[in-house]
Amino acid sequence: MLLFYAPDIMGNTYVLSELESKHVLKVLRKGIGDVIFLTDGKGNMFHTRIIGTDVKACMVEVEHVERDYCPLPYQLHIAVAPTKNTDRLEWFAEKAVEIGISRISTIVCDNSERSMVKADRLQRVMVSAMKQSLRARLPQLDVNLSFTDILQEYKEPSVLKLIAYCGVSPVEKLPIKQVVKAGQPVVVLIGPEGDFSQQEFHTALRQGFIPVTLGDMRLRTETAAMYVCAAVSVVNQ
Amino acid sequence: MLLFYAPDIMGNTYVLSELESKHVLKVLRKGIGDVIFLTDGKGNMFHTRIIGTDVKACMVEVEHVERDYCPLPYQLHIAVAPTKNTDRLEWFAEKAVEIGISRISTIVCDNSERSMVKADRLQRVMVSAMKQSLRARLPQLDVNLSFTDILQEYKEPSVLKLIAYCGVSPVEKLPIKQVVKAGQPVVVLIGPEGDFSQQEFHTALRQGFIPVTLGDMRLRTETAAMYVCAAVSVVNQ
Repeated sequence: MLLFYAPDIMGNTYVLSELESKHVLKVLRKGIGDVIFLTDGKGNMFHTRIIGTDVKACMVEVEHVERDYCPLPYQLHIAVAPTKNTDRLEWFAEKAVEIGISRISTIVCDNSERSMVKADRLQRVMVSAMKQSLRARLPQLDVNLSFTDILQEYKEPSVLKLIAYCGVSPVEKLPIKQVVKAGQPVVVLIGPEGDFSQQEFHTALRQGFIPVTLGDMRLRTETAAMYVCAAVSVVNQ
Repeated sequence: MLLFYAPDIMGNTYVLSELESKHVLKVLRKGIGDVIFLTDGKGNMFHTRIIGTDVKACMVEVEHVERDYCPLPYQLHIAVAPTKNTDRLEWFAEKAVEIGISRISTIVCDNSERSMVKADRLQRVMVSAMKQSLRARLPQLDVNLSFTDILQEYKEPSVLKLIAYCGVSPVEKLPIKQVVKAGQPVVVLIGPEGDFSQQEFHTALRQGFIPVTLGDMRLRTETAAMYVCAAVSVVNQ
């Protein structure tokens, strides 16, 4: 099964982008009548058939739509401080989309090695991972949020709010699997290599965030974020 | 804390390699009397002090040894078909060492896109990840095993034997978290992008391997292997 991204699909026909048209017609050698799948990244899976073979503008006709295709059985938002090396953040985004995540944010922290992230490149990695893993939902992405933005956003008590912290905590840090419950929406904050500052950590605690530990190993930022993603997926299995 | 690898450490003094000597003395600007940590990758953590500052042969004296430093609370062996792109396999090895694993093997499968892997490069990645994550145990690595080698090796019933398989199975595939028990040694087989062949799968079943599912998502080989690693770690938390 081959999946293509059609964020702006509407109506009964659709023209693929030049790049995807070339891929479908030249690389995969598809032709009139062949079936390909499209997603809008909003949960819809379109079964389509090729009706036009312009190599720069492959046209398809929608035959059938599956709404809410393979929904993620949980809501997970990871807000992560970007890594110094962009590859590592992109790598996390790819793996998170494959495993399952509903939202990725990058946050600017006191100890951030890098603050500004370009959304478009990260978005491309995520689209590619969505297609690869046959998902029909592109996670929300927002970059360069301030730590305060994130805290402000989570006032509702229905979301489980966690912060992964390596430093000393006034309250016991529980293993993540002990606090995540299947089906409960969760937001997890992952700090930079130098960890969250004490001030950030205590501000988060006052806002109702629960400190968690990912074990006694020292994980890189992107490994910690990916580990959380896998842990939430495992709990929800 | 900075950790260096000294696989052949014996006695009371040790001379770092040229590369590590340069790192300690030139990059980190350490000098006589400064403390650095060494591990032999066999579970021992050596607290040492610099006693010689030859930039090509930094000499240290062992002050104290911690035996069985931060042992992994579980035994996990992942045997994985190498990915077409070597980076992806190396990436898995790095993450697995960070999260915790006792042995990594690469296996040659019917549908392997690549069969031969060079051990030395993978080993370097693992050493680097061990130092980075402050572990004192370098997981065992063996490359290019045949599928049969692996099956032959696991005859003892004390090890939980799992195979991740995407195809149709005559027995129900359970989610991995339902079959892994905290503390029980486990071996997991992860196939190539084209999955294990039916023949491989059925041979494994006959040898007592239990089929597991990692969820309904289509994961790349290295993501599947890393997911298993995280899942076993989570279960053992």
